[in-house]
Amino acid sequence: MSSKTMTNRKIETTAEDEIRVAVDGWVEAVQKRDLDRIMSYYAPDVVSFDAILALQFKGRDAYRKHWQACLDMCTSEMAFEVRELTVAADRDVAFCHYLLSCGGTKEDGEKEVGWMRATVCYRSIGRRWLIVHEHFSAPFDMESGKALLNLVP
Amino acid sequence: MSSKTMTNRKIETTAEDEIRVAVDGWVEAVQKRDLDRIMSYYAPDVVSFDAILALQFKGRDAYRKHWQACLDMCTSEMAFEVRELTVAADRDVAFCHYLLSCGGTKEDGEKEVGWMRATVCYRSIGRRWLIVHEHFSAPFDMESGKALLNLVP
Repeated sequence: MSSKTMTNRKIETTAEDEIRVAVDGWVEAVQKRDLDRIMSYYAPDVVSFDAILALQFKGRDAYRKHWQACLDMCTSEMAFEVRELTVAADRDVAFCHYLLSCGGTKEDGEKEVGWMRATVCYRSIGRRWLIVHEHFSAPFDMESGKALLNLVP
Repeated sequence: MSSKTMTNRKIETTAEDEIRVAVDGWVEAVQKRDLDRIMSYYAPDVVSFDAILALQFKGRDAYRKHWQACLDMCTSEMAFEVRELTVAADRDVAFCHYLLSCGGTKEDGEKEVGWMRATVCYRSIGRRWLIVHEHFSAPFDMESGKALLNLVP
């Protein structure tokens, strides 16, 4: 292995670790419903494809309003579990994808949980990894047109 | 600007162009319904979050079967239009996202078109950019649980 290849590999390993830390931090912020902390993970010009409502949200301000609406919709503690996290990172560009169970507790105490898919794309901006793009979704059934919220990994 | 920064920027610009070429080639392959050519864009261990049916498809063989099923489902010419393509690429890692109108012509001649969201993630493998992950989806409506297939950008 050339020393250049070894250096590149070291950069990638370190960057991948940094992305894992960023994902953990974001999940913790969501679980704590801390909107300021959640938003601190996004770049100002983030383009988000969220699972509900609209094709896309452009820019951190628009996305913050959507996040606020989501937190208002789900007032119980957020049950968030990340599974099958896969990370690829280079010097300035990184992405990860994972399955995400998210849900809460209904007023009658019943738990509602569904599995979604997440792809999160980062750029290194001012020495920090910031999310420039993310994509959350549930697949849908072609016949009924309904989102498939009962699938399990 | 340091010469190192200039070199990095040059690498990124070239890589971004290469990703744009890869996206164009993939779109053309889909429009021509050329399954072998479509599959040539994927890495053997691709993990795909497709818009329909399942949470994920793992590996090129499983994904090929799904692609075959999709092509069988939509027998007319595929109307595919990419809009708002955004690319980020470094030495070995790249991603892009875009909006995709896809549809076909029904038996009575009526055109059916819907906008979806696409995120496609690449790694440079053996000097070629291959798709290691992709994510297609439509957002859904929380009340009805239905996929929102009538949204326009």
